Amino acid sequence: MSHFFEDFAVGQRFAHAIPRTITAGDCALYLALTGARSPVHCSEPLARALGHPSCPVDDLLVFHIAFGKTVQDISYNAVANLGYANLRFVEPVYVGDTLHGHSEVIGLKENSSGKNGVVYVSSRAVNQHGREVLSWVRWVMVAKRDPAAPAPATVLPDLPREVPFASLAVPAFLRSEALDPVATGGTRLWDDYEAGEVIDHPGGMTLEEAEHMMATRLYQNTARVHFDAHRAKSSSTGRRLIYGGHVISICRALSHDGLENAFALAAINGGTHANPTFAGDTLYCRHIVLDRAGLPGRSDVGALRLRMLGAKNVELSSLPPVAAGERHEAVVLDLDYTVLVPRRKAK
Amino acid sequence: MSHFFEDFAVGQRFAHAIPRTITAGDCALYLALTGARSPVHCSEPLARALGHPSCPVDDLLVFHIAFGKTVQDISYNAVANLGYANLRFVEPVYVGDTLHGHSEVIGLKENSSGKNGVVYVSSRAVNQHGREVLSWVRWVMVAKRDPAAPAPATVLPDLPREVPFASLAVPAFLRSEALDPVATGGTRLWDDYEAGEVIDHPGGMTLEEAEHMMATRLYQNTARVHFDAHRAKSSSTGRRLIYGGHVISICRALSHDGLENAFALAAINGGTHANPTFAGDTLYCRHIVLDRAGLPGRSDVGALRLRMLGAKNVELSSLPPVAAGERHEAVVLDLDYTVLVPRRKAK
Amino acid sequence: MSHFFEDFAVGQRFAHAIPRTITAGDCALYLALTGARSPVHCSEPLARALGHPSCPVDDLLVFHIAFGKTVQDISYNAVANLGYANLRFVEPVYVGDTLHGHSEVIGLKENSSGKNGVVYVSSRAVNQHGREVLSWVRWVMVAKRDPAAPAPATVLPDLPREVPFASLAVPAFLRSEALDPVATGGTRLWDDYEAGEVIDHPGGMTLEEAEHMMATRLYQNTARVHFDAHRAKSSSTGRRLIYGGHVISICRALSHDGLENAFALAAINGGTHANPTFAGDTLYCRHIVLDRAGLPGRSDVGALRLRMLGAKNVELSSLPPVAAGERHEAVVLDLDYTVLVPRRKAK
Repeated sequence: MSHFFEDFAVGQRFAHAIPRTITAGDCALYLALTGARSPVHCSEPLARALGHPSCPVDDLLVFHIAFGKTVQDISYNAVANLGYANLRFVEPVYVGDTLHGHSEVIGLKENSSGKNGVVYVSSRAVNQHGREVLSWVRWVMVAKRDPAAPAPATVLPDLPREVPFASLAVPAFLRSEALDPVATGGTRLWDDYEAGEVIDHPGGMTLEEAEHMMATRLYQNTARVHFDAHRAKSSSTGRRLIYGGHVISICRALSHDGLENAFALAAINGGTHANPTFAGDTLYCRHIVLDRAGLPGRSDVGALRLRMLGAKNVELSSLPPVAAGERHEAVVLDLDYTVLVPRRKAK
Repeated sequence: MSHFFEDFAVGQRFAHAIPRTITAGDCALYLALTGARSPVHCSEPLARALGHPSCPVDDLLVFHIAFGKTVQDISYNAVANLGYANLRFVEPVYVGDTLHGHSEVIGLKENSSGKNGVVYVSSRAVNQHGREVLSWVRWVMVAKRDPAAPAPATVLPDLPREVPFASLAVPAFLRSEALDPVATGGTRLWDDYEAGEVIDHPGGMTLEEAEHMMATRLYQNTARVHFDAHRAKSSSTGRRLIYGGHVISICRALSHDGLENAFALAAINGGTHANPTFAGDTLYCRHIVLDRAGLPGRSDVGALRLRMLGAKNVELSSLPPVAAGERHEAVVLDLDYTVLVPRRKAK
Repeated sequence: MSHFFEDFAVGQRFAHAIPRTITAGDCALYLALTGARSPVHCSEPLARALGHPSCPVDDLLVFHIAFGKTVQDISYNAVANLGYANLRFVEPVYVGDTLHGHSEVIGLKENSSGKNGVVYVSSRAVNQHGREVLSWVRWVMVAKRDPAAPAPATVLPDLPREVPFASLAVPAFLRSEALDPVATGGTRLWDDYEAGEVIDHPGGMTLEEAEHMMATRLYQNTARVHFDAHRAKSSSTGRRLIYGGHVISICRALSHDGLENAFALAAINGGTHANPTFAGDTLYCRHIVLDRAGLPGRSDVGALRLRMLGAKNVELSSLPPVAAGERHEAVVLDLDYTVLVPRRKAK
């Protein structure tokens, strides 16, 4: 059930266990654990005004639950989660929907140490109607059971460096003009953001063991590194590692103040958990606007491509610019993603 | 969006962001985070027997969510939350209802230091039907952005010292005789409490960082002092402060044993967070019965005015009487409020 | 309301306070607090395929809520929870159901110290239709208020050493063949387990104060030993004790990997909390298969009798066999219980 590096083969497919129906309880917990505040996900009247039948589930909650399903088969014995690519939010998910997970191995590369290797996996979540709601690629370093086991042939997948703006999914029913700035708490729309702009979000959030473990269990993510302090004593860090997705959620919640009208995630182009995060760390979030584009057939909503930096235990005002690809000791998250934001009406 | 003292003007109005639909998930979390046990809020058959369409949401959960909406505009830069007055629970709230928040500045007074000032705000929460469910006044000390900024003219509002018994809201549909003592666990009714009576409730509750932060995020209250341990290191206490409302909820829950049939909050007449509370503190609760009154047109239900003392890290048996207005180092909460309790049937 | 040893009499009956409607919020919290992963409780389509109208509530969540109701009357002043017997899961519970608790004292025995005594109680939970969903016996050591109080006559109940296989409740509607191994993540069925088999489950879970307190409050279990760190300083352990039921839930969740198709608890034959568990401890779980039996009138589902050992802060690979009745310093839980598992179809 849990696999080591030498157990994987390119083309191998997994139907992941534990289909999961999302409930109002999951959504309340997500809010309590992360501080998410977008009214799209917590105001039924606003959600209906936008054209949804009810509040859509927070995009990242969908991601975490979908991701969690892949852990038992793919990354239970992972050394590190190395990167993401081509992550697409395809269709909204609502309370009552049931998610199933599927994956296919698309690449393998043994590391020179012979102790582990990188597994590239293409995964997707489908709902109870069999429709895809989310798809992504990730690569993860997985330990070998037996360092002497022969290495599989190296296959490196061809991964897109970004999800093209033109391919982003926007529900046809969406009435984005219903996103009332009074409800979101911010008046800045798509037109008001410029490439190169830097936003240092004002809040900070200190993380606790109980919180990241509750979140990670809610997602039914069983990766041992998050839960077992006894075993962690003999690890390189000596401590439980916080699930990187929890860090993304905390940063997304902190960034509500400054990105109030970024009402949906459309894609994650790439990203890295640049440093580990531990209980007791305090997270802050900086965004850099990378790009801005209109969307085919939509004059009401546009896309912003953003770079999210999660930094820990540092005043953002003292954090220097961090170049793309550069590592900074305080930066734990460096995520390249794309959000949807309403556009100003033509006058 | 977040305001400093010199940004406020008497008469200024705010429509607060983030309308919030209350769900069964919120109610379960409230129970898990506070230990609330009134069956009115967790037994659907009992709620319906009382005349409700379904379980009413715990009064304090409604308060915390409504209060949380005001933080971003009013108290994000608060130094301290100084007091409450004239808080009225006007109408029950049910799962599925959506709360909106509104505030008006009704008073301002710069402190002699010139570094901050007191802002008096009248706030209210309305539901999706536009009906008021809760209203209150609070005053809060807010930092100035610029100590050299000119002080606004001092305006001190005329605040009532209490919410008159005769003005308390009791739903016309309420069948309070359905409040079965077997269900609540206590047989004492309105008739059995006497002014001057002191009740030392038996339980104690130790507070944890993860818990108060989860509660405060659930309420979408973003006040920085509760969440950011890194920044708190340079504060006067050096630590995260626990949201005062969490302390009220813990004390309310502890007081179920002794006030089992106090089935609803009707008003908060006034109160103060007399000392800060931190993770690791253990809370205990004492009540003093202040007054008792019948209610117009109701022979089945009466009002008790109570003084709630929250004390930390002390045996209640060793806590001396604390006079009104007196401060005691162990007392963190001193709240004057009014509850509804069924009356004995005339024989 | 809370009783000491000398307050009890054989034949005494209690209708416990605080009827409780179970919600989707409770179920989400249970999952987040324990890591439970059986898809029977989190996938609506799977639950309906099994014949349920909706997801049945996790058996242990039902138990904890039912157990919690008995604490205020029975074990608020308990020194220790000594044992269980004859626990039967009689009927499934669903979101929206309301549980009531009832107990009867069936035995009493003062300890030789004269400071406390053992109270034997038969308890049951009934739903809003008045149907029993769960019944059990437990015995608990309760302090005397007054060591000089006369001891009641000793009455020792005749307790069954096991719940007979033939008496286990299996819903007539249940289509156990719908339990898809792809959904559960495991292919082993009833036929594949042999008496004497030992299963060391791979995960480990470190416990936090915030988590066990949230769980125990969710169950409205008010036993003081779990919540009051200030008072605990003067106890023999000096610390808050973790509710033994939380330990059972954690072990049940850890054991999903290896017992994936054990889709329901049918009975608890007996058990003991062999050592106290504290925040910071890391739990591991071993199972020993005790026995296997078919069930009257069912060719599709069988019963496994299991022994669950919960061990803390120890590698299971270094934990020796622990004989029945033997105590090992690392073992905190030794539970004898019976689960239902689908059988292979005859070919």
